[in-house]
Amino acid sequence: MAAIRVHGSTVSTAAMRVFACLYEKELEFEFVQINMGAGEHKQEPFISLNPFGQVPAFEDGDLKLFESRAITQYIAHEYAGKGTQLIIPESKKMAILSVWMEVEAHQFDPAASKLTWELGIKPMFKMVTDEAVVEENEAKLAKVLNIYETRLTQYKYIAGDCFTLADLHHIPNIYYLMGTRSKKLFDSRPHVSAWVADIMSRPAWLKVMAMKH
Amino acid sequence: MAAIRVHGSTVSTAAMRVFACLYEKELEFEFVQINMGAGEHKQEPFISLNPFGQVPAFEDGDLKLFESRAITQYIAHEYAGKGTQLIIPESKKMAILSVWMEVEAHQFDPAASKLTWELGIKPMFKMVTDEAVVEENEAKLAKVLNIYETRLTQYKYIAGDCFTLADLHHIPNIYYLMGTRSKKLFDSRPHVSAWVADIMSRPAWLKVMAMKH
Ligand SMILES: N[C@@H](CCC(=O)N[C@@H](CS)C(=O)NCC(=O)O)C(=O)O
Ligand SMILES: N[C@@H](CCC(=O)N[C@@H](CS)C(=O)NCC(=O)O)C(=O)O
Repeated sequence: MAAIRVHGSTVSTAAMRVFACLYEKELEFEFVQINMGAGEHKQEPFISLNPFGQVPAFEDGDLKLFESRAITQYIAHEYAGKGTQLIIPESKKMAILSVWMEVEAHQFDPAASKLTWELGIKPMFKMVTDEAVVEENEAKLAKVLNIYETRLTQYKYIAGDCFTLADLHHIPNIYYLMGTRSKKLFDSRPHVSAWVADIMSRPAWLKVMAMKH
Repeated sequence: MAAIRVHGSTVSTAAMRVFACLYEKELEFEFVQINMGAGEHKQEPFISLNPFGQVPAFEDGDLKLFESRAITQYIAHEYAGKGTQLIIPESKKMAILSVWMEVEAHQFDPAASKLTWELGIKPMFKMVTDEAVVEENEAKLAKVLNIYETRLTQYKYIAGDCFTLADLHHIPNIYYLMGTRSKKLFDSRPHVSAWVADIMSRPAWLKVMAMKH
């Protein structure tokens, strides 16, 4: 049994965030597939790993975690010496990185994940897209991306000159949105567009994509 | 000029989170009041501190931060030796703390802050409460608090046996909700209710309340 186990689904943006992090850190892990269609995430044994009944859940030996961004932060700190350095070992730079992780969580994700749901996931399950939700969240996301565009004229990556967790956390929603009409919001902003091309072509992300086959 | 400056408002839950943290750490700071009614948070000089135009913004010498939870994490790490220890200097325990900070941010806050807005803030400005939003978010918050109730039968605080940032981050929304009909959601759960009584009576929080006068 591998020390590191991820319980989730390759369709889940939150689970993908953890897979991408593990591949960046070149860590071996076991993927335990949760059949969400059958509601396995709302039942034992899964809800003992995450009482909120959401994927992913994570184990490293006897440590059990959930919430994708808590998991990636644990991995980045605990395995700091392996693979890509995803955090910054200097307190003021780490504070800036922390600001942009919070921006992803509180500014980008609320709009982006609603668009992922309406335009990326619902059509997969033949559910009807709510156009009002799309309109409202495209407007919100556009405002966020205006600020990203300015930021990315100054820095190559969102938290500074290096790729970090703050960039990585964005990848799964961007992956879905690039397959929808919301792609235009990224394409129409040159620095955002270059950043997207860069982070989506990372070998670690290509390995996450390969898990789907 | 104090080294630490917080730009914000004593009405803002996000700013209160930072004030509570600074008082827990027994740090001196200068409070720079932003007149949100006059839209100062959407103009220079404020938007140079936070391009998203939201309070709080924070300075410590030449370090400039925004996003309340990034600020509290910086303070807790940078001033680890002062006042209340709000983080845990052991990686596996810190990972658990990180899980519960994410739970506050992604499970508790989305519902709680909508209720704070509808029932706590809107009436202050004679705006009309949207009952459908209240109903939806009380149902969501009830589910979250069911999980907290179970957790708090095992531990005195949300991340374990000590008061940490994970508890502190909840205080401002709970403060507002205790003055609304959503109070019943907390009162009806005995362990949640004892936890609320404990964290709301901390001397650091009473100092935040005193700032309002
Ligand atoms: N904040 C959580 C979100 C997890 C989440 O929303 N997972 C989705 C799949 S991406 C899920 O399990 N949805 C099923 C549900 O909420 O019932 C995290 O980052 O881990
Ligand atoms: N995620 C941010 C939220 C900040 C926030 O929403 N601030 C509110 C006051 S509590 C604000 O400035 N609202 C005005 C606006 O959004 O235009 C944080 O935690 O700092």
